[in-house]
Amino acid sequence: MTKIFAYSIRKDEEPYLKEWAAAHPEVTVDYTADLLTPETAKQAAGADGVVVYQQLDYTPETLRALADEGITKMSLRNVGVDNIDMATAKELGFEITNVPVYSPNAIAEHAAIQTARILRQTKVLDRKIESGDLRWAPTIGREVRDQTIGVIGTGHIGQVYMQIMEGFGAKVIAYDVFHDPKLEEAGYYVDSLDDIYQQADVISLHVPALKNTIKMINDESIAKMKDDAVLVNVSRGALVDTDAVVRALDSGKLFGFVMDTYENEVGIFNADWRGKEFPDARLKDLIDRPNVLVTPHTAFYTTHAVRNMVVKAFDNNLALVNGETPDTPVKVG
Amino acid sequence: MTKIFAYSIRKDEEPYLKEWAAAHPEVTVDYTADLLTPETAKQAAGADGVVVYQQLDYTPETLRALADEGITKMSLRNVGVDNIDMATAKELGFEITNVPVYSPNAIAEHAAIQTARILRQTKVLDRKIESGDLRWAPTIGREVRDQTIGVIGTGHIGQVYMQIMEGFGAKVIAYDVFHDPKLEEAGYYVDSLDDIYQQADVISLHVPALKNTIKMINDESIAKMKDDAVLVNVSRGALVDTDAVVRALDSGKLFGFVMDTYENEVGIFNADWRGKEFPDARLKDLIDRPNVLVTPHTAFYTTHAVRNMVVKAFDNNLALVNGETPDTPVKVG
Repeated sequence: MTKIFAYSIRKDEEPYLKEWAAAHPEVTVDYTADLLTPETAKQAAGADGVVVYQQLDYTPETLRALADEGITKMSLRNVGVDNIDMATAKELGFEITNVPVYSPNAIAEHAAIQTARILRQTKVLDRKIESGDLRWAPTIGREVRDQTIGVIGTGHIGQVYMQIMEGFGAKVIAYDVFHDPKLEEAGYYVDSLDDIYQQADVISLHVPALKNTIKMINDESIAKMKDDAVLVNVSRGALVDTDAVVRALDSGKLFGFVMDTYENEVGIFNADWRGKEFPDARLKDLIDRPNVLVTPHTAFYTTHAVRNMVVKAFDNNLALVNGETPDTPVKVG
Repeated sequence: MTKIFAYSIRKDEEPYLKEWAAAHPEVTVDYTADLLTPETAKQAAGADGVVVYQQLDYTPETLRALADEGITKMSLRNVGVDNIDMATAKELGFEITNVPVYSPNAIAEHAAIQTARILRQTKVLDRKIESGDLRWAPTIGREVRDQTIGVIGTGHIGQVYMQIMEGFGAKVIAYDVFHDPKLEEAGYYVDSLDDIYQQADVISLHVPALKNTIKMINDESIAKMKDDAVLVNVSRGALVDTDAVVRALDSGKLFGFVMDTYENEVGIFNADWRGKEFPDARLKDLIDRPNVLVTPHTAFYTTHAVRNMVVKAFDNNLALVNGETPDTPVKVG
């Protein structure tokens, strides 16, 4: 009987693992909360493939320990493969898959909710209420429907964000180097980034970090924006010159800032700094500001996304084990 | 030249007052931050009408002081007329208008944003982040698109809320005694409240407080709901048996609760309790809970709504002064 073994399964992943197992009675599924290391590789003994997800490196020693158990079919539940020693993986004949897309809606919904919260001044109001001040004035909201939303990048995430903003009744304009034919037909695209900066009340970034997008939000582009603009970055920290944004928050040029990603997030996000010295004074200042909403790269983190990460990884692994072509193979080597 | 005088103008109302004045060069507009009292009535001397908004009673003395200045045309910027001595107003020949609807979208957007926040667990996550804990697990979000949204009451506010939820991609079902033909045609209505309770992941109330809606959310109706349901009340505090909701939060039956109105809000909301004993222990407990979002009846409070309150009141007052029929007259007496 086919057997798949899964490593570093979190509590929130268990229901989806069990759902997949129930739908595949022909497969024995076993799992552990442990990470995959040279020492834990033997836990997978007898399995035909493994399902994994960890920040920890997949070192030559780890890969060899797995291969020693006869296992060379490995399916990642996440997208990143930077921490796999590909030379060793190739030498040992590994076949690898990943899950490149978990849930575009998770990220688009997060961006939309945080956009609306900034406009509504919920952080100011929540703090007032928690302190015992139940007066509403002067903490007045701006309605989403009254805004022109400028979307930079009209891939899947950008398009879902546009759809949500339109549900609120907002006017949406968009910019992208590549024009989606449906959006083009419907007349969403403006001709230049300057058009976005000059017309939009909210500017939301949904582009990858490339040579010409890194620090695209800087003193110069902010100067072109409307007064009281809202900036939303749930894409890549590198898109934004954070010092320039701080200056624009200080001057009052920007009404607010949503950030789920940060230039220097590696080693800071997804860690517990309570009782320790916080490692980044600028980030701490942003977290404390009433018109900034910081989240530590959590936009992706929904039950829908986690289910997809688990189910797609197991689907991929079963395909590898059965000698079929998986949906999303990773180039090994 | 026609003159209109406005009382108790707040800073956030000034831009809209000035906008209206600029659009009506034939009218002299003057105003004060003072409330209308027997003493301040003489500030309106020479005016043809007054625009007002205050919690303070419009007493017989106040109304007489205005009438002594020859002013009997009074336009409220808000809806409530309970604090007007109508007998005296009738005796003195007052003509009165109010603004019954400011912005249904303000309230619907607030309900939608708070719904999404509960599903996303933003209060838990924000507190973690402010404490220095930047780990994402186990604070996982539920996507709005995965929910069945049950809307009770399909008037203007309920319909805007439905539209926003559909923008997120959610499934929407509705219940109302009165069926809107367009919604009926589109198949939104279920047959009974029980259908809503049994099918919906989110239940949002958009009905007035009437004999058969008061405490409609109670132990019995909550027991019919799905586990992990979210309850949203931005309508009237009296719709909800708050003790029953607290029990359902304690037991874990309810995933979360949004409240912008509260059974006992009069005298507690819109006041500053810092440095004083908080007057309602149950409310304080709700404010502190990580899965409850309390706002002090602020859902209406947006720039769009405030503009409407000012502009519509001035339009009404000018109509009265010109001997025309105002849009929204109040029955005097």
